[in-house]
Amino acid sequence: MDRFFEYRALARQMGVQAVGLVPGPNFTRALGVSFHTNERPFLVVIPAEGAPAAIMPNLELGSWSDAGFEGETFDWRDQDGYQRAFDTLAAHLPLTSLAVEGQAMRVFVAEALRRANPGIALRDGEREISGLRLIKTPADIAALTRAIRISEAALEDVLSTVAAGQTEKQIEARLIQALFAHGADDMSFGPIVAAGANSAKPHAHAGDYAVQPGDALLFDFGARKDGFAADITRTVFVGHVPEEGRAVYDTVLAANLKGHEVTRAGVSAHEIDDAVTGVLEASPFADRIRTKTGHGLGRDVHEAPYIMRGNHEVLEAGTVFTNEPGLYQLGGFGVRIEDDVLVTDTGCRSLTTFPKDLRVVG
Amino acid sequence: MDRFFEYRALARQMGVQAVGLVPGPNFTRALGVSFHTNERPFLVVIPAEGAPAAIMPNLELGSWSDAGFEGETFDWRDQDGYQRAFDTLAAHLPLTSLAVEGQAMRVFVAEALRRANPGIALRDGEREISGLRLIKTPADIAALTRAIRISEAALEDVLSTVAAGQTEKQIEARLIQALFAHGADDMSFGPIVAAGANSAKPHAHAGDYAVQPGDALLFDFGARKDGFAADITRTVFVGHVPEEGRAVYDTVLAANLKGHEVTRAGVSAHEIDDAVTGVLEASPFADRIRTKTGHGLGRDVHEAPYIMRGNHEVLEAGTVFTNEPGLYQLGGFGVRIEDDVLVTDTGCRSLTTFPKDLRVVG
Repeated sequence: MDRFFEYRALARQMGVQAVGLVPGPNFTRALGVSFHTNERPFLVVIPAEGAPAAIMPNLELGSWSDAGFEGETFDWRDQDGYQRAFDTLAAHLPLTSLAVEGQAMRVFVAEALRRANPGIALRDGEREISGLRLIKTPADIAALTRAIRISEAALEDVLSTVAAGQTEKQIEARLIQALFAHGADDMSFGPIVAAGANSAKPHAHAGDYAVQPGDALLFDFGARKDGFAADITRTVFVGHVPEEGRAVYDTVLAANLKGHEVTRAGVSAHEIDDAVTGVLEASPFADRIRTKTGHGLGRDVHEAPYIMRGNHEVLEAGTVFTNEPGLYQLGGFGVRIEDDVLVTDTGCRSLTTFPKDLRVVG
Repeated sequence: MDRFFEYRALARQMGVQAVGLVPGPNFTRALGVSFHTNERPFLVVIPAEGAPAAIMPNLELGSWSDAGFEGETFDWRDQDGYQRAFDTLAAHLPLTSLAVEGQAMRVFVAEALRRANPGIALRDGEREISGLRLIKTPADIAALTRAIRISEAALEDVLSTVAAGQTEKQIEARLIQALFAHGADDMSFGPIVAAGANSAKPHAHAGDYAVQPGDALLFDFGARKDGFAADITRTVFVGHVPEEGRAVYDTVLAANLKGHEVTRAGVSAHEIDDAVTGVLEASPFADRIRTKTGHGLGRDVHEAPYIMRGNHEVLEAGTVFTNEPGLYQLGGFGVRIEDDVLVTDTGCRSLTTFPKDLRVVG
């Protein structure tokens, strides 16, 4: 069994000589080891035919040996710089065309490849390479579910202690501690804990704002566990719910439920977003729509399929995506409700089980 | 006062039309707002002459308004894709040459720029652009010191609770919780908590290994606070210190102290690494050298200057770097001691103050 057979097949399909992987979710999936992205170039080249090869910083050789890599590894030391490793790889395996992950490979690595292999055609194969992760295996879903359960337990811990006067940052710090206390390996991303007017910014950072009675308080966060990333949003209200808050919440919840209702294998990403966004558009709050319905979820917190109008990709069973409609009134408040949803042959299953009834805390 | 004057001057010095920034430390320094790197392209273009311009995902406009950006912003929605924003920017400000951050800009952004501006010359200006962050201001040093104090307090909390039988992951989870309990905004990077043979891998991830009496236990981690990243390593022993452990520890500590001794404004990165590594080379453990002495530290956890032989860059007062010699016996154990050091006119000041006496825990 050649563990790289999918990548070799992809190179043939794309009509390129090889696939190049840099540290990130595809690298971890293919090699079984993970590395940080930093100023040191790493690269694994998997040709359509023949032995793979790698460029590796010398100081990572200890961790790299865990990968049991079957090809040549060209390592380099900081003192010598990395270009010689690219040149040596080019002498060993001259590259004329390479499919790369456009969203993961950085310009300095591409430039080193171009210097070593003049005339090389670099093709952005992000969609195809990451596409190998589209359909989740049962083991993938089990790991993602573990990540979600940790996230839900942490959220419950934090919600039970929120009170008016606490700052977003204080609440965020407790959320993060709870994630690790419940067994997270890492966070999927820097959490969003946003109250009042900040809740209307879809990607707000927690700040020194102290939550006030009547505020919307939005949590968007997730644990990473065993290589998989949860991504969950719940919006609660502090002290009491203003009338408009309830109406907006009910609208967003109806849109989220519509998403669950229409999802099954064979439906397109376009159709799901159209149904979900249609609920928001039919409400009095249509001018507060700022985002699409969601995105794929797995080893990466944002991956294919993107659940948006115009994306006519048909979803297959085993796909996982976020169903996260929201309404955002700039200067006012925002509400978002996000579940992680597994597509099945007959419908869907929400891997997220945290209650969605409107909740008042503090 | 034109807040972009340094970037404009840099464009003129580099002989390019403009500087392009993507989310990351340079972007945050220049704009005063920070964004996550994700699948959505962001770009700020600062020309040598004339108004700046930006490409921004529509859903970030709320956060982007905090930047008080004085140029045109071309926003795009997920449904429409990002290429049109690049094309519109090119019509507004046709680009012939652009200095970019080679370690931050990803290939798909470079490709979108090339499609919109055929023939554009992209120059890797990582060194020059990030070089603007080389000399730290007093405010920078104050923020970094806050990050370091948080890190030290967290380490002390954790060391007082380590016992044989605990796994690396359990210890790591407590370290992370302690960082946030002490006020960290984020972690500088995923911490390294590595015991026994894992301590010999310079960038090990915490795993399920349970620490044993006599093990070296290495912590390499840091808090991020107010935009600045601490980076600290201490190695302790569990239960007791094997004789070789003590000899290796003393060697690494002597190398670290040598680094402090030789550092002052006017000394080169080469000279510091040569002095530090010279101590390791003169020991019986010279075959365990796997890394250079260190790297610059600030908004980025790895930045210029790289403290290594062959780098004849002369350090100026206000530079901060890590002094982190180590010895790594693959299959045996590793020891590293890392301080964050501020270069001054007359010598240096260690911003890290956590004791370095050999410590036995548990």
